[in-house]
Amino acid sequence: MRTVNAYAAVSATDPLEPATIERREVGPHDVLIDIAYAGVCHSDIHTVRGEWGPIAYPQVVGHEIVGHVAEVGSAVTTHQVGDRVGVGCQSGSCGECEQCAKGEEVYCLKGNTQTYAGVDADGTITQGGYSQAIVVNERFVLKVPESLDLAKVAPLLCAGVTLFSPLKHWKAGPGTKVAIVGMGGLGHVGVKLAHALGAEVTVLSRTLAKQEDGLKLGADHYYATNEPATFEKLAGEFDLILNTVSAQLDYNQYVNLLAVDGTLVILGAPSEPVAVDAISLIANRRSIAGSANGGIPVTQEMLDFCAEHNILPETEQINAAYINEAYERVLSSDVRYRFVIDAKTFA
Amino acid sequence: MRTVNAYAAVSATDPLEPATIERREVGPHDVLIDIAYAGVCHSDIHTVRGEWGPIAYPQVVGHEIVGHVAEVGSAVTTHQVGDRVGVGCQSGSCGECEQCAKGEEVYCLKGNTQTYAGVDADGTITQGGYSQAIVVNERFVLKVPESLDLAKVAPLLCAGVTLFSPLKHWKAGPGTKVAIVGMGGLGHVGVKLAHALGAEVTVLSRTLAKQEDGLKLGADHYYATNEPATFEKLAGEFDLILNTVSAQLDYNQYVNLLAVDGTLVILGAPSEPVAVDAISLIANRRSIAGSANGGIPVTQEMLDFCAEHNILPETEQINAAYINEAYERVLSSDVRYRFVIDAKTFA
Repeated sequence: MRTVNAYAAVSATDPLEPATIERREVGPHDVLIDIAYAGVCHSDIHTVRGEWGPIAYPQVVGHEIVGHVAEVGSAVTTHQVGDRVGVGCQSGSCGECEQCAKGEEVYCLKGNTQTYAGVDADGTITQGGYSQAIVVNERFVLKVPESLDLAKVAPLLCAGVTLFSPLKHWKAGPGTKVAIVGMGGLGHVGVKLAHALGAEVTVLSRTLAKQEDGLKLGADHYYATNEPATFEKLAGEFDLILNTVSAQLDYNQYVNLLAVDGTLVILGAPSEPVAVDAISLIANRRSIAGSANGGIPVTQEMLDFCAEHNILPETEQINAAYINEAYERVLSSDVRYRFVIDAKTFA
Repeated sequence: MRTVNAYAAVSATDPLEPATIERREVGPHDVLIDIAYAGVCHSDIHTVRGEWGPIAYPQVVGHEIVGHVAEVGSAVTTHQVGDRVGVGCQSGSCGECEQCAKGEEVYCLKGNTQTYAGVDADGTITQGGYSQAIVVNERFVLKVPESLDLAKVAPLLCAGVTLFSPLKHWKAGPGTKVAIVGMGGLGHVGVKLAHALGAEVTVLSRTLAKQEDGLKLGADHYYATNEPATFEKLAGEFDLILNTVSAQLDYNQYVNLLAVDGTLVILGAPSEPVAVDAISLIANRRSIAGSANGGIPVTQEMLDFCAEHNILPETEQINAAYINEAYERVLSSDVRYRFVIDAKTFA
């Protein structure tokens, strides 16, 4: 066991505060990572505040983790001390089911282990990336290509793959029209990825406030969804709509923007049920789907793709002590576009 | 113009009654069909009763039509007098849009022409198959293989392709598990088709009343949905669920029966919105989709497939005068499994 510094939630309502947590001994298949940076995801806030169900406290969150390998277990062959590596939303899965065999660990039939607030193989509750170091099974350790700036790459581990996986699964590319709903932490990476994949990209954001950014990041078009005319003009337009907004929407409005055989993919879970008129699905063979972040192979593919296309999230680097203020700014959409904590400041 | 005998609805509430209607002259691209049999679809009842919106009366319905070619227009090359032919739910489309170019006439971007209660190219309201003869553009005339019993084949033109098209689109076949919800006019054909395609087929019916039939028609399993245990036992089971039931369901129950990457396809439009929890879609990359009947190429493929596999609907042949009683029996699910009107009895 080793004790490391971290920032933890101690209740659903208190601010996060400095804490120490224990990391397990490095087992034969484990990798010890000295964390360099940890991204701040909206999920972190939902989790610590108990909005996705009760959790045990203290809880360290963070599932956008990058750093360097500090130690490897005796059986580890794919990672070496000093390697630049990352960890995303999952740190474990059964490894044996049909989905794990396909490299779709996120859809493990026995339930994957979330990187934080999950139940680990040894029965303990997993503690996430707002800390100095983490011990993770080698399978869930990604290689971060040398060309990607380590100070900015962390959000790709969640936001990046959450967008890349459905873009690949639903075959976004040249000749396809893709809409990204929401121009936040997830959406802005989606714009870059969809553009690099060769799709024609439209941002559907509540207002035009971030239009200049959107076009700069690779969007071909940018529309405000608080303008009813948007929904008339774009009816039947898109092969794929990726909805990054977890606030409740009028889904019929968005389904009507789909072309024949188009798919609306929900990435952020609204608390209310998704309700749509069946006739709009039937008359145009449209689909509504959901997608979680992504398995390990597609996450690695995403990192390599980003290296090839020089894609990085837009980030604002912060110190650990700023985390509570950062949370408030995430909630008021006052970040362009992702906070990344410098893990040196957990010291 | 020629006058033919038919059975027509004269209001939303009166019984259907004998009537005569005018059929247009055979144009260069038209085919005149002497109707032999017309299937009775639940849609016919919804339409004449105004349940899908107001219609003009008198209205002749029927979109499961088979017969023989009696005359062809000067430019028709693909059909000859005497050919066994069929007409399904559509009798026209723009012919020029992207969907028509792909043979997906049912999804015509300018709106297809329904075989009845639609607006024809000449502006008249289309009149359907409960009649002695019909004139249809050659593109919408299907070839009925010689080996298929003409007295039973009519329901394939709607019920058959409505099931076959999604089975093909979502790749039902060996190694896939398909559930058919509802064991009626559509569902019973779906069982036969899915079985012939090589899928493992499960019927989900309200009760076990038709279990013996279902297993005989090719189902591997048969479960009652009025048994809560069904939804526990079959959780995560199916790659594809085809819902033929237009009554309101608890869609979450059915979505939870989908495997990872599974799709629930809605074929019959419920009047209430389809409401599902997003998290169940997200956590398993599941989809909900809709599907209309099918374009002309897939309809022909279905007929040829049925000839190859000796598939015919289970039918009960009736005379025209029995139609109102037949409607009542359709509404009380008292038909195994499709009524077919002998068109000689329109005389």
